[in-house]
Amino acid sequence: MKMTTASICTIGDEILIGQIIDTNSSFISRALGEIGVKTTRMLSIGDSRREIISNLRKELKTNQIVVCTGGLGPTKDDITKDALAALSGSSGYVKNEEQQKVIHRILSSRGLDVLDSNLQQAMVPDSCEVIVNRLGTAPIMVFRFGRERFGHEAVLYAMPGVPYETEAAVGDVVKDIKSHFKLEDIYHKTVMTYGLAESALAKLISDWENALPDYMHLAYLPNPLTGVRLRLSVYGGNASEMAAQAESQIEALKPILGNIMYAESDDTLEGTIGRLLRGTGKSLSCAESCTGGEIAHLITTVPGSSEYFLGSVTSYSPEVKKSVLGVKATTIEYNGIVSSAVAEAMADGVRKLTGSTYSVATTGWADSYGDEHEPAGTVWVGISGPAGTKSVRFNYKSDRKRNIERFAASAINSLRLYIVENDK
Amino acid sequence: MKMTTASICTIGDEILIGQIIDTNSSFISRALGEIGVKTTRMLSIGDSRREIISNLRKELKTNQIVVCTGGLGPTKDDITKDALAALSGSSGYVKNEEQQKVIHRILSSRGLDVLDSNLQQAMVPDSCEVIVNRLGTAPIMVFRFGRERFGHEAVLYAMPGVPYETEAAVGDVVKDIKSHFKLEDIYHKTVMTYGLAESALAKLISDWENALPDYMHLAYLPNPLTGVRLRLSVYGGNASEMAAQAESQIEALKPILGNIMYAESDDTLEGTIGRLLRGTGKSLSCAESCTGGEIAHLITTVPGSSEYFLGSVTSYSPEVKKSVLGVKATTIEYNGIVSSAVAEAMADGVRKLTGSTYSVATTGWADSYGDEHEPAGTVWVGISGPAGTKSVRFNYKSDRKRNIERFAASAINSLRLYIVENDK
Repeated sequence: MKMTTASICTIGDEILIGQIIDTNSSFISRALGEIGVKTTRMLSIGDSRREIISNLRKELKTNQIVVCTGGLGPTKDDITKDALAALSGSSGYVKNEEQQKVIHRILSSRGLDVLDSNLQQAMVPDSCEVIVNRLGTAPIMVFRFGRERFGHEAVLYAMPGVPYETEAAVGDVVKDIKSHFKLEDIYHKTVMTYGLAESALAKLISDWENALPDYMHLAYLPNPLTGVRLRLSVYGGNASEMAAQAESQIEALKPILGNIMYAESDDTLEGTIGRLLRGTGKSLSCAESCTGGEIAHLITTVPGSSEYFLGSVTSYSPEVKKSVLGVKATTIEYNGIVSSAVAEAMADGVRKLTGSTYSVATTGWADSYGDEHEPAGTVWVGISGPAGTKSVRFNYKSDRKRNIERFAASAINSLRLYIVENDK
Repeated sequence: MKMTTASICTIGDEILIGQIIDTNSSFISRALGEIGVKTTRMLSIGDSRREIISNLRKELKTNQIVVCTGGLGPTKDDITKDALAALSGSSGYVKNEEQQKVIHRILSSRGLDVLDSNLQQAMVPDSCEVIVNRLGTAPIMVFRFGRERFGHEAVLYAMPGVPYETEAAVGDVVKDIKSHFKLEDIYHKTVMTYGLAESALAKLISDWENALPDYMHLAYLPNPLTGVRLRLSVYGGNASEMAAQAESQIEALKPILGNIMYAESDDTLEGTIGRLLRGTGKSLSCAESCTGGEIAHLITTVPGSSEYFLGSVTSYSPEVKKSVLGVKATTIEYNGIVSSAVAEAMADGVRKLTGSTYSVATTGWADSYGDEHEPAGTVWVGISGPAGTKSVRFNYKSDRKRNIERFAASAINSLRLYIVENDK
C-alpha cells in the first residue's frame, strides 16, 4: 500500500519574523504519524493571498493531505479565508450556526461584546465542511478535492493557530482522515525510560529488538529531560491482535529494562512520582540549592500534586541551609558546599522540617567554576526516606539553564528509583 | 532599494516526525530582521538528497539568501554535504584544518576517541568557504552563486542544527551577509514593558507613535511572560545620527510609560530584579504556594543571583505555611487560604525566616474550582520590605501550567514595582 503523505503549512507573518515559535507543526506531525500518515514537508508562509493560494496548490499536488494552521484571527481571516475560497472554487459564504453559538458563549464568558468582526468568523466558504472549534472563535474548515483536480483525492484542513485550540482540534482532524483515507492499520505502544543514552539503550536491548518480526518497528525518541521514549509500532492486522502482540513483546522487554523503564505510556518523571505516591498517604518535600525551585515547580505541574507534596525549601545561601534546614557549618566546611554530606543533610533537614515521608535535595554548581571539591556541572542529589538517606552524583557539561534542568530531572529520577527500590 | 529576502530551511527527519520542535528558524529570522533582511519562507524537509537539492534550488531562485540548518551530524553529513556539493558544482572535497583542530579539542575534552566519522566532518566541498564552528564539530559552509546561476547574486549558508551551535554561529553569518549585500541601514532600540496588553499599550502611546517621522517604525512584540517588547527601528542615515534620534524618541516615551517600562534593552523581569539588587547589599527571599517553585527557579536562572537571592519556601500544604512560615491558623481560617492576609503573612514569614531585605509570596488557585473566597485562576501576591507589607490580586483564565507561569511573572513584576516605587 502506498503511504498517505501530508504537508503541514503555517500561515502568519508573526512566525516569519521570528516573533513566535511554531509548535503546532510538531504536534500535528506526531498525531499524523500515529495513524500512519507521513509528513513530507513543513512550510511557513506570510499573510499574503497570492502566497497562500500558490503554496497550498503546490502542496496539494504532491500530498493527499494538507493541514494549515493560523491566519484565521478576527483581523486576518479575510485574507486566508478569501484565499481558501478562491483555491477551492467557492461561490459564496454561508453562516455556520453552531460556531456562531460558540462565539457568543466564549465572548460573553469573558464579558466582551460580540463585534461584527467576531461574527464574521462563523462565515465560511460554501465549498467547505466545518468542524466546530469549541475552544475558540474560528471554525476548522475542511476542503475536499476530487481526483480530477490534483490527480489524487486530496483534503485541506484549515485550523486556527492558537496552540491550545489546535491541540484540541487535532483529534477531530485525525478522525476525519481515518474515515476518508484507506490507511494501513497501526498499533503503537510507548514505553518511557530514563538513565541510559540512546546508543547505550540500543545496545542493551539489541537482542530483543533484532528478534522483532518484520511487521513491528521500534523508534527511539530521546529527550534530555524525560529520557528516551521507545515506541513499538505494529503494522497490519486487526486491532486486538496487534495490541496483544505489542503487549507480549513489551512484557519480554520489561525484565531487560528493569528500573530504567518508568512508564508504559506517555508520561513524565514527575507524573510518575504522582502515580507512585497518590492514594498511599505518603508525602514528599524537597530542598533545593542549584536547581533553585525547578524540582518543586515540576512536581507541582502535576494535577493533584497537593495530595502528596508538602513543600520545599530553596536554600540558595549557606545561611538558609544552616538556619532553616539545620545543615551544620562543619559539614559544609569539611566537605564543601557541593558534596554528598551536604546533600544528605539537606534532605534530612527538609524531611524533618515538613514531616514528609520522602525528601529529595540538590546541591551543585550549575555554571560557576566549581571549587576544590567538585567541578562545574556537578550536582549531588540527596534522598531521604524510611529506608535511610543516600546520595548520588551527576555531572553535565552544558550551560547554566540546561544544567539546572538536567539536575532537576536526575534528582526526580533518583527519587523515583529510591521509592521503587526501597518500598515494595 | 529592493529588500533583500531570505528563506530558512531546516533539514532532518526528526523535525518532520515531530520529535523535536524547530527553534532555530525563529532565532535566525529575528537575527536577519535586525539587519533588514526579510524572511519570506520557512521550510522543513527530510534527509533526502533529491529533496535537499530540488528544494534549495527553488529557494535560491526566489531569494538572495538561503540559510539551512541541520543534516550535518556525523552519521548524516554525507547526504547533506553530498547534496550541497552537487548543487554547487563542487569538484571534490578539501580538508579544513581549523575545523579539524576544533574537532580534536572538543572530543578530547569529553574524553572521547576521534573516529574517522568525526574527522570526515572537517572535509568540505571545494566550492564553499568555511566559517569555523567553535562549539561543535560540523563547520558552517558558505556557497556563493553568481548572477548567471539564479538571475541574482545568491548565498547559501549551511549550519549545524544544534540550537546552541546555531545561535553562536548566527553572528558570523549576519556579519558575512552585511559585508556581501547592500542593505538599508537600520538602527533598533528595544524597550521592555509589563502590565498592559498590546491594545491598551497602543492606546496609551498613540499620540507619541503617530508623531514618529516616516523613517521610524514601531513594532509591538507581545509575550505573556515578559510583557510587550517595543522595538523602534530607524531607517537610512548614519549610525550615530540614527542612534541619537532613537534615543531622543525613547526619552520622550519614558514619562508616558512610567513604571510599565522595565528595561531599555532586551531583558526579563527576573533579570531586572538582578539589575535592581546586584551591588546594593540588599537581598531577596520568596514563599510560594500555587507557583510551586517557579518564582525561585526564574530568579535563579539569572547568573549571579546567588549574590542577592537567599532562598525560598514552597509551602504547598497549609501545615508548612503554619510551621515553617508562621502563618496563623486563624488567618487561614478567617480569610481563606487564597487571600490577601495569607499572602502578606507568607511574605512576612519568609522574610523573617531568611532575614532578607525583600520577599515575595504567592497563594492562589492554578486550576481547581477555587473556594467560596476566590475563583480558579486567582492569585494573591504578597510583598514585604522596609516600606511595609502589601498585596496585589491577579486573575487569569488559562490552564494549570500557563496560569502558574503567569502568576510567577505577575509576582516578579509586583516585586519590581515595590522596589522601584519604595526604594529611591
